[in-house]
Amino acid sequence: DGRVASEQIDDPFATDPERDPRLRKHSDRPCNAETPASELGTFITPNSVFYVRNHLWVPEVSDADDHRVTVEMGDGSEKEYSVQDLRRLFKEYKVTATLQCSGNRRAHMTAGSRPTNGLQWDVGAIGTAEWTGVRLRDVLTDAGVPVDDLPPHIKHAQFLGAEAYGASIPIEKAVDNRGDVMLVYEMNGQPLPRDHGYPLRVLVPGNVAARSVKWVKRITMSEEESTSQWQRRDYKCFGPNEGTNPDWDRARSIQEMPVQSAITSVEQVSTGGLKDNPAARVYGLEEESFVLEGYAFSGGGREIVRVDVSVDNGRTWQQADLLDNDAGGCKAWSWKQWRFSTPKRQTARWFVVKAVDEAYNTQADSFEPHYNFRGNLASAWHRVPVQLARD
Amino acid sequence: DGRVASEQIDDPFATDPERDPRLRKHSDRPCNAETPASELGTFITPNSVFYVRNHLWVPEVSDADDHRVTVEMGDGSEKEYSVQDLRRLFKEYKVTATLQCSGNRRAHMTAGSRPTNGLQWDVGAIGTAEWTGVRLRDVLTDAGVPVDDLPPHIKHAQFLGAEAYGASIPIEKAVDNRGDVMLVYEMNGQPLPRDHGYPLRVLVPGNVAARSVKWVKRITMSEEESTSQWQRRDYKCFGPNEGTNPDWDRARSIQEMPVQSAITSVEQVSTGGLKDNPAARVYGLEEESFVLEGYAFSGGGREIVRVDVSVDNGRTWQQADLLDNDAGGCKAWSWKQWRFSTPKRQTARWFVVKAVDEAYNTQADSFEPHYNFRGNLASAWHRVPVQLARD
Ligand SMILES: [Mo]
Ligand SMILES: [Mo]
Repeated sequence: DGRVASEQIDDPFATDPERDPRLRKHSDRPCNAETPASELGTFITPNSVFYVRNHLWVPEVSDADDHRVTVEMGDGSEKEYSVQDLRRLFKEYKVTATLQCSGNRRAHMTAGSRPTNGLQWDVGAIGTAEWTGVRLRDVLTDAGVPVDDLPPHIKHAQFLGAEAYGASIPIEKAVDNRGDVMLVYEMNGQPLPRDHGYPLRVLVPGNVAARSVKWVKRITMSEEESTSQWQRRDYKCFGPNEGTNPDWDRARSIQEMPVQSAITSVEQVSTGGLKDNPAARVYGLEEESFVLEGYAFSGGGREIVRVDVSVDNGRTWQQADLLDNDAGGCKAWSWKQWRFSTPKRQTARWFVVKAVDEAYNTQADSFEPHYNFRGNLASAWHRVPVQLARD
Repeated sequence: DGRVASEQIDDPFATDPERDPRLRKHSDRPCNAETPASELGTFITPNSVFYVRNHLWVPEVSDADDHRVTVEMGDGSEKEYSVQDLRRLFKEYKVTATLQCSGNRRAHMTAGSRPTNGLQWDVGAIGTAEWTGVRLRDVLTDAGVPVDDLPPHIKHAQFLGAEAYGASIPIEKAVDNRGDVMLVYEMNGQPLPRDHGYPLRVLVPGNVAARSVKWVKRITMSEEESTSQWQRRDYKCFGPNEGTNPDWDRARSIQEMPVQSAITSVEQVSTGGLKDNPAARVYGLEEESFVLEGYAFSGGGREIVRVDVSVDNGRTWQQADLLDNDAGGCKAWSWKQWRFSTPKRQTARWFVVKAVDEAYNTQADSFEPHYNFRGNLASAWHRVPVQLARD
């Protein structure tokens, strides 16, 4: 009948990499898989269990040195760099930064208010790595972009991935001396894993991960945002009343993220085990207790300054201990891990966590007033039933 | 008995200026007075009704040209500038920026949760002006501070006012090319009013107004924050459980502010008046209605992207119209005014407003979980009883 049999169409997903079986898969083609809560307890998330959020297939780059990125100046001129050029021409930086998918905790919004469109991520669409690469600012300068005196027709830096994904960021962020926007080729001291952009990705610390374009092959100076659906549609938030067919142009593309926090572990320490339990020793626990752990994070490099935990459904609050971690970079691009212990006899029905960032932004109590049909930036208080932990 | 009779002590408040009787006074000595809601409806707040927040008396400067500001480099060297020097030596800028007291809406926190320490401001400890002056960055550069390559012992810019008030900001904000931190001598095209810092004040757009030191006479490069009580104590937030004697050093000084909004006007438009009412014409109102107005604002230059209004106690939401205003400056330092109209028959017991900024930060539903005993940064949803408006 003239149609090509489907098995004759090249399957672009056929060469996707193997994934660690500990990742919790939400979809296969494209691969979307979150870090299990059990692997969220370290400041640096290991590459093997770092959440994977792919919009399409994983492009195959057989030789890293074949991969080139082209900078388009917006006036017709362009300049091309291989990964080797980047390493050779520019100063290398290491920046520790948390990446978070705009859909992290979407499942909680769905459960707490109404159905949302999109992958139903739990607490694991987030992770922290040390990224090695060069500053986009330096590359743009070399390519001829006047980064300290931008002409009016350069308002956005658009990024295009080898698989066709595209996104953009405001040019001010791209060239900010303290913005730490980079082209990176290493993740936690290893070559970028294929799922995370091998051989080259953009890193936009403090912004939603959707702007840190993987397998980047083209960077365009533009008066307009990227015209991709991921810039103009999916990664936006509308009001709780707005339906699935909004005026997309009315909402702002997500760039910086609001303050967020989650409980990733609840450990019950019974009286019998008190002596042998490391947490019990650290906290000097003297009765049956719970030890809670989790993360808190905010966008824009705004540091987390306080994490409040409630063991009685949000009625009263206490401060969690914030763990200190040295992280390279101009601002607080990384999550803060926190710990909290409580005697079991003080607990009611729900453990709750909320965080505060350095601008004293707070998290909302509940999801419904902040519902958006795409389920983006779900950041109301995280509640975990004590009962589950008790079992 | 050797003590000086109190009438013999010079009264520093004796030379305080006259104030506009429309200002709502919270205290006399020092003068603290807020803008009445009726005067919050314009994008630019007139100087005469701009809220006054003094910590001490108003210093008397008979001749502006006698007033000098000294820049201390932190290595013992210093340089002095008269206001005339500043005008002569540096490029002049105009920046439109909203100033907000950290206590704005404190009365709402008190009413919504528990008593708070401090002046019980309503919605009027906020205002917007066009400020004229020179960039602090330029002055520091002239004084010899290497603003693009700061030595490690310069971490804060401390400001001292002529009356003894002091505060500081992180040096990164002070020298940020896009931070618009200025030394200003005009407010809305007039010389600074005495209550607002005549002849010279600091303007730190996006930060709590307490850092925009008035009558500034000394600027010190320092490794430490200002040691004033206003830096080390008063302008901080603690957890809802923390009492009036906290470990002050544990909390971060307030600098950038969280997202905020308020209803400043509720006008009832009756059927009889529909034809003659300008708002009714603008909105095409065809039945008895309410027209609501207010402001929304966020710190750090984060623009307000959406204002949601509820006419049924927060159960359902609709979007308010955001008014467009041209404002000079590198970021969104000014509030957004908003308007909303609703048929009377749709209203329940409370009008509620909440706003969203460009980082998609949200306001909390209620005050208690975000209570702090100083009542700072009260920013839970603003609720106004419909009944009051109906009377
Ligand atoms: Mo995402
Ligand atoms: Mo204030």
